[in-house]
Amino acid sequence: MKKHTLIAEPGSNAFTLTRTFDAPRELVFKTMTDPKLIPQWWGPKDYTTVVATMDVRPGGGWRFVQKGPDGSEYGFFGFFHQIEAPSRVVQTFEFEGMPGHVLMETMILEERDGKTLFTDISVFQTVEDRDGMIASGMEHGFSDSMEQLEALIEAARVAR
Amino acid sequence: MKKHTLIAEPGSNAFTLTRTFDAPRELVFKTMTDPKLIPQWWGPKDYTTVVATMDVRPGGGWRFVQKGPDGSEYGFFGFFHQIEAPSRVVQTFEFEGMPGHVLMETMILEERDGKTLFTDISVFQTVEDRDGMIASGMEHGFSDSMEQLEALIEAARVAR
Repeated sequence: MKKHTLIAEPGSNAFTLTRTFDAPRELVFKTMTDPKLIPQWWGPKDYTTVVATMDVRPGGGWRFVQKGPDGSEYGFFGFFHQIEAPSRVVQTFEFEGMPGHVLMETMILEERDGKTLFTDISVFQTVEDRDGMIASGMEHGFSDSMEQLEALIEAARVAR
Repeated sequence: MKKHTLIAEPGSNAFTLTRTFDAPRELVFKTMTDPKLIPQWWGPKDYTTVVATMDVRPGGGWRFVQKGPDGSEYGFFGFFHQIEAPSRVVQTFEFEGMPGHVLMETMILEERDGKTLFTDISVFQTVEDRDGMIASGMEHGFSDSMEQLEALIEAARVAR
């Protein structure tokens, strides 16, 4: 069963993904922004991820390298504009396979009755870039990431 | 006579401004990205601008403080994602009067027959933010900025 929601209006430069976690947002934020934990949840399940850089502060850079099942490598990088624990991250995002195509991602965590609503807004330079990202299988990768993140958060809750 | 073009589709998160300069793009790029020159062209004509920070490199920050005719001060800041002289700058942009509302700006310079086409794409987290920016008088400020920049570029050409 699909646990996330994708909103992508036709002809818009943006899309929004949402997902609810059964945990307080401090824990969700801490898990999501911990460089040591990124390899355990970021990306599709059959890919591995190495954190090359993750400097969690405004102006700090991040860079992850993913390796697919066939050994192909894919680099992603960006810079943080805002880090506001435990509620908000704004960052840029570029896939090294498509240089110059940059998006801005806003991640918002809102807590309600002990649960956390995660809203992830991506805005692109063009509608074509937005459509291309959706066509690339982004939603599958997001779904896998969120499932793996949920398992990590659950394990952290039990360990507390 | 209006020398720029604004494209802002209803319901979009983005708008695009374009302006042509009668100068090679190396000169336009150099003039636009020189911290010492920013106070001479950035913003409406009846405002003054002080450059607090301008660290022109990926991950580097920028911050300008504008003072209006009545003495009110307005801060703006962001971080550079890409600096690709003389063709491209990608940066984030936040007005300190509306914290958390961030846009991403892509500035592209293309040279044709010795003239430079400047394209400035701004993408916002929401359509409301985009509409608010247009309603704030942004186009007037852009027009003034471009006129002042054109005068600076012309002066630099003559001095060569």
